[in-house]
Amino acid sequence: MSYEKSLGTVDTHYFHMDEDLKLETGDILKKPTIAYETYGVLNNEKSNVILVCHALTGDAHAAGWHNGDKKPGWWDIIIGPGKPLDTNRYFIICSNVIGSCKGTTGPSDINPDTGDYYGLDFPIVTITDMVHAQKKLIDHLEIPYLYCVVGGSMGGMQVLQWTLSYPDIVRNAIMIASGAYSTPQQIAFNAVERRSIIEDVNWNKGDYYHTDKRPEQGLSVARMMAHITYLSNESMYEKFGRRLQDKNTFSYDFSNEFQVESYLEHQGVTFTQRFDANSYLYLTKALDYFDIRNNNSLEEALKPITARMLIMSISSDWLYTHEHMEDIVMALRSNNVDVSYSRLNSEYGHDAFLIENGQMNYIISNFLSKARVKDVMSHKVITLTDGADIKEAAELMMTCNKTHIPIVDTNEKIVGLVTAWDLSKAIATNAENIEDIMTRNVYTCHENDSIFDITTKMKEHNISGLPVIDEEDKVIGSITTAHISNLLDK
Amino acid sequence: MSYEKSLGTVDTHYFHMDEDLKLETGDILKKPTIAYETYGVLNNEKSNVILVCHALTGDAHAAGWHNGDKKPGWWDIIIGPGKPLDTNRYFIICSNVIGSCKGTTGPSDINPDTGDYYGLDFPIVTITDMVHAQKKLIDHLEIPYLYCVVGGSMGGMQVLQWTLSYPDIVRNAIMIASGAYSTPQQIAFNAVERRSIIEDVNWNKGDYYHTDKRPEQGLSVARMMAHITYLSNESMYEKFGRRLQDKNTFSYDFSNEFQVESYLEHQGVTFTQRFDANSYLYLTKALDYFDIRNNNSLEEALKPITARMLIMSISSDWLYTHEHMEDIVMALRSNNVDVSYSRLNSEYGHDAFLIENGQMNYIISNFLSKARVKDVMSHKVITLTDGADIKEAAELMMTCNKTHIPIVDTNEKIVGLVTAWDLSKAIATNAENIEDIMTRNVYTCHENDSIFDITTKMKEHNISGLPVIDEEDKVIGSITTAHISNLLDK
Repeated sequence: MSYEKSLGTVDTHYFHMDEDLKLETGDILKKPTIAYETYGVLNNEKSNVILVCHALTGDAHAAGWHNGDKKPGWWDIIIGPGKPLDTNRYFIICSNVIGSCKGTTGPSDINPDTGDYYGLDFPIVTITDMVHAQKKLIDHLEIPYLYCVVGGSMGGMQVLQWTLSYPDIVRNAIMIASGAYSTPQQIAFNAVERRSIIEDVNWNKGDYYHTDKRPEQGLSVARMMAHITYLSNESMYEKFGRRLQDKNTFSYDFSNEFQVESYLEHQGVTFTQRFDANSYLYLTKALDYFDIRNNNSLEEALKPITARMLIMSISSDWLYTHEHMEDIVMALRSNNVDVSYSRLNSEYGHDAFLIENGQMNYIISNFLSKARVKDVMSHKVITLTDGADIKEAAELMMTCNKTHIPIVDTNEKIVGLVTAWDLSKAIATNAENIEDIMTRNVYTCHENDSIFDITTKMKEHNISGLPVIDEEDKVIGSITTAHISNLLDK
Repeated sequence: MSYEKSLGTVDTHYFHMDEDLKLETGDILKKPTIAYETYGVLNNEKSNVILVCHALTGDAHAAGWHNGDKKPGWWDIIIGPGKPLDTNRYFIICSNVIGSCKGTTGPSDINPDTGDYYGLDFPIVTITDMVHAQKKLIDHLEIPYLYCVVGGSMGGMQVLQWTLSYPDIVRNAIMIASGAYSTPQQIAFNAVERRSIIEDVNWNKGDYYHTDKRPEQGLSVARMMAHITYLSNESMYEKFGRRLQDKNTFSYDFSNEFQVESYLEHQGVTFTQRFDANSYLYLTKALDYFDIRNNNSLEEALKPITARMLIMSISSDWLYTHEHMEDIVMALRSNNVDVSYSRLNSEYGHDAFLIENGQMNYIISNFLSKARVKDVMSHKVITLTDGADIKEAAELMMTCNKTHIPIVDTNEKIVGLVTAWDLSKAIATNAENIEDIMTRNVYTCHENDSIFDITTKMKEHNISGLPVIDEEDKVIGSITTAHISNLLDK
């Protein structure tokens, strides 16, 4: 397994919705466009889809290279052949959130109602709205369910919202360095950052697209401020210490003397070249509004969740603290949700989720390898009743391209299995009835069984598929080594 | 001991220096004015002086009330009759730092060289310069030494600098929620705050005093940002939660929706009414430059310190962390400095030093009550040699108004004590020589003895004064119950 491998060149696609998006506020976003990228190949069962959700200023370009770019997508350390989100196994989708400015409709786009830029006419969007827009994309791609949804920071909020808005569709969910609600400290930083933009004379109440002036100073200060919150004190000390920029002694003036000052200014300036100030206002507002609690209860709010969850915090993250993440874990556990928790041991602060590929590789790979039967099983139910005759069985086998068919009684409970080998036996013995030839000692599994356990069972008995049954022994689907090896064998 | 008591009305005084202040950079600040306040009464021995150093945006008005004000000085919880810095015992001085805008010369004042406002012509000042200016004030007030120097945040830096620049003058020092150097994170926040001011079009390169426009937006954003760093996440949650301001539902726009937003904006706006933007630039720069280490060694740098130290950190302070304060304590201990350390248990974050009067009262009172002999002793040495005659002793006693005179040998070592009572005995017995009447069994103490211990000793033996001797038994001063009760009896 090599981490050096890259996806190579990738392209952004655009899904132009032919319907309006109804928003949480009741407002309508007219036929938005959603920018997205995909990596890897969708398998026949459509069971290998992983949706990646990006953070505040991210985009659809999560991995691989765009032509002419000097660096790859924002999560290339995690996504690619042989990487934790392995494009040899999974079909990865990442889309730009609504309200942003990286290809998906946002305030810097044209309002079809006016023919002019949206600016502040763009409707307020929430994390739920972002998730609804992603669901439209998933539907458009005819994907029935998501093997996994994963994201950090604002991406983690989308992950949590997915498990709540679409519990039937999300099998596994990985939430990193994020929260169940924005804290007053987070709101405070966002508010001051917005204030910095709004006070910039070039902001002009959001109506600056017609001019050649942008609220660059305000946006730059906002980004500088935000950037401090993404780093830990330790990592700043490690990275900059109190070293001076290009000099040995203080200049005793108001220029950028310390390296950390130059670094932040550079971050601020380059950000203004890649991000729209109004989008920054809208997306930070979406963060502020986010609070999934019911009457301040996390437990109550998280009850709909059926997905297996991995919650990952970062030891040195003071913006999205591990204490907050642990509160979510506690609430999930008290709801009997199958949840794993890892605290990433890192000095990088909040940004560690974009950096710590070693630890994330281990934790994410481990989590995904412990998937359950229901994460990958086929839900198609093909059975015969125990009164069926041999010919019926042979015809069904050919029609469905199956070598194993479960036999059920009149109560739909499993009583046996007939295989292609059994049918050969019927020809040899002139048997006419299924009951005469079927295997009565059938291995089965349940949808919450671990893939690891049933893989062991199948190897032990040299069988390639198992019927999945419910608590009443009724057949609800099947799982084969093909399903599994698609995703999990390493 | 009542904490309800206030100093009542107080006034600010102004010390107009008649000499220039030489600055650390080599620049000169022409005859600055220093604004200061004093509370309590200077005792005859001038041994009860406590200098209070203020934080970034503080001023000389530390306690009591100015006419017409709605709230008292910034540390009224600590300073006053019966409070930890007890104005019934101590003579408290607090002066505004140079570079500020609260009465002491700063960039908003007139440059005597040009007759115009200083603006950016004001020289860069450092924490050391602030301390040197305070020393000029202390000299002007004819105060020989400081019983204690105390301050939090930037005030704590001044405290540390005092112990290093004037080790002979500082007896006790209390440093709260501060640091031995500014960390890159602190520099980063300061840099972004300055950037916000500098990018304000009304800042005009610091030359705005002639106009009616001030860089209020930039200064307001800077203050909002700084204010976040003074509070802990917990205290913000306690204070604001996610409650909305004057409404029950989201308005879904860019107004101040959350209470924390309104609070911060209010803090920003009121700050612009009381503080000069250029002073903010200069004082944050002074913070940035502060680093007392020698070649990155704290231990090396702290070697000059002779003061007894109290280091106080705040558990929830993430800007000036307790880890950093503990590094200072470790370095002091390895230098055998007499240092006490307390971590204030508070959820208020950095601002706790302006709030937690209960804990601070306990810790500070306890520290001050454990003073050493040298903190309050008289350094006047009055002795007689063992060859002296009775008449000489009687005359000396009358001249110096002393009831006890130590008798030393030719090596200046103490060999006895003669008291007024001994002289009466001489008259009764017609003795002529000191040796015939002096008490040979003399109680003494050393300058590092604890006041508490020697007070116990004096009470036990019913004596009102002790000679202070050095390691070679030479007399170096004296201490009396008057010295002690002045300061410490409670």
